[in-house]
Amino acid sequence: MHITSLGGGHGLFQTLVAARLSEPDSITAVVTVADDGGSSGRLRREMDIIPPGDLRMALAALASDDADAHLWTRTLQHRFGGTGALAGHAVGNILIAGLAEVLGSEQAALDKVGELTRSHGRVLPVCNQPLEIEAEVAGLDEDPRVIRPVRGQVAVATTPGTVRRVRLIPEHPEPSPLAVEAIRNATLVTLGPGSWFSSVIPHLLVPGVVDALNETDALRVVVLNLSAEPGETQGFSSERHIHMLSQHAPLLRVDRVLVDSEAIPTSAERAYLVRAAAALGAEAVFEDLGTVDADGRRLNIHDPVKLSRAFTSLYTGSRD
Amino acid sequence: MHITSLGGGHGLFQTLVAARLSEPDSITAVVTVADDGGSSGRLRREMDIIPPGDLRMALAALASDDADAHLWTRTLQHRFGGTGALAGHAVGNILIAGLAEVLGSEQAALDKVGELTRSHGRVLPVCNQPLEIEAEVAGLDEDPRVIRPVRGQVAVATTPGTVRRVRLIPEHPEPSPLAVEAIRNATLVTLGPGSWFSSVIPHLLVPGVVDALNETDALRVVVLNLSAEPGETQGFSSERHIHMLSQHAPLLRVDRVLVDSEAIPTSAERAYLVRAAAALGAEAVFEDLGTVDADGRRLNIHDPVKLSRAFTSLYTGSRD
Repeated sequence: MHITSLGGGHGLFQTLVAARLSEPDSITAVVTVADDGGSSGRLRREMDIIPPGDLRMALAALASDDADAHLWTRTLQHRFGGTGALAGHAVGNILIAGLAEVLGSEQAALDKVGELTRSHGRVLPVCNQPLEIEAEVAGLDEDPRVIRPVRGQVAVATTPGTVRRVRLIPEHPEPSPLAVEAIRNATLVTLGPGSWFSSVIPHLLVPGVVDALNETDALRVVVLNLSAEPGETQGFSSERHIHMLSQHAPLLRVDRVLVDSEAIPTSAERAYLVRAAAALGAEAVFEDLGTVDADGRRLNIHDPVKLSRAFTSLYTGSRD
Repeated sequence: MHITSLGGGHGLFQTLVAARLSEPDSITAVVTVADDGGSSGRLRREMDIIPPGDLRMALAALASDDADAHLWTRTLQHRFGGTGALAGHAVGNILIAGLAEVLGSEQAALDKVGELTRSHGRVLPVCNQPLEIEAEVAGLDEDPRVIRPVRGQVAVATTPGTVRRVRLIPEHPEPSPLAVEAIRNATLVTLGPGSWFSSVIPHLLVPGVVDALNETDALRVVVLNLSAEPGETQGFSSERHIHMLSQHAPLLRVDRVLVDSEAIPTSAERAYLVRAAAALGAEAVFEDLGTVDADGRRLNIHDPVKLSRAFTSLYTGSRD
């Protein structure tokens, strides 16, 4: 099994941890480059580089467990405290930025950091240039018909309005050839979970990515979020998450939409989802996927063991 | 041969490169921690850590030459440009600061970076706490008898006045036990060249260092600067450099004072130096030590090949 996982942030982190548990022959992370907040945003503005934070997180998810790799991973993830010029910066973000300047390539920098962490897989930015997202947002004015543009990942993720659509700036960026190749050569491709408008949909707007998804022989699995996120998808149903994919990428075809069975318990809701998935050419699959804490509470985060089991079972089933 | 080199900055860098060329059994750098300028000064103030710059430079001098170690060394030494919050910071300084926070020890951080660069020797701060220097400076007032305190390495190094004496703040810091041990276990100890008041004399003010120098079985070699530095030792003769050592450490005993024969060409000047060295219990040795560029110009920097040859010859001579 060769897994290629598309996403960003914590959603991609959990997916990669799950992917590792499935013990595939290879794992490749294809990561969004539209973040403009926090340490990543500061570095991106200061140095005109791809925001490193999501890439660093993916490397952390794929790091080996031996003591040395673990120390490097902790260091990459460590954030400076205090109130000075470095406060809030992750050490790994700065190291990636420095290596990228010395090596003349962010990809080479990521591969070098992957050597330190003895990475279980390669981490690829979806584009080799930083991107911005701009959303059309309703509900910001008295008149609900007024649509306003909201630009930037942080602004979109926290808008009190309703996001209708997002676009990339620049609109037609060059995809990373390595990322396209990783989709084409995979046997299992995952998209999501994650912040829908900033970590998931942007992948579909990069020219060449949808073509690669449509042409790969891989089993293509969309992993839905466990619930809508406050801010960007506040109040969105799971069905609407799926519709958002086809709206932004009308030609997209996938094979499975993986849904948390606990989040969508009723057969009426499931019927809607089945129909929405079918519009993408996909079968909706319901599995228990959420993390349950020691007190039996369900957390809004995928359980890597359950997700890994679902990946393996979907993949095996598709090869029968 | 086990070499322990005391110093800081570019002087220590050249000494360590020379030490490597002598192919000793071990090299240990014992490094000043009083820098308060530039990237080091900013990190020290922001994070209350030992200033990492001189330590990073020593690691760079000791790094292996293979492609991977060389890339890490270039990255450690790389400085961010531009006009942002990170401008001027060396990547290695930030990495040392981050590792020190994660590992809870600057020494552990330096050892870890030394693994990346496959270091030919260990780098030890002389103290595990940051130090300040304060100088008594004459010539800042109309009345030349007025002595004013000037605090901080940068301020002392650039004072237009004449430095009479320096002290440490705090005055009696705890020495690094590893540094004391490295002096005691060496067979060749070098002190200098370097900024006399900020990289050389501060070592002699750390309690325990002079005792270790006096009690070690090593051959103890003071390496004089090729010329006085603008600022802190402006107008100082070589002889006065030696007197400064005894003035700050009256009990200090060394074996050789290594002097550039081209800088001190006349027999009259040499006679003064011989006498000054004798006051430390040392023999003055005159060797051609300066770098000559492609156009035959003498540069104000030791030639590592010549310095290495001098180390080997002094050491071998002392064992006969």
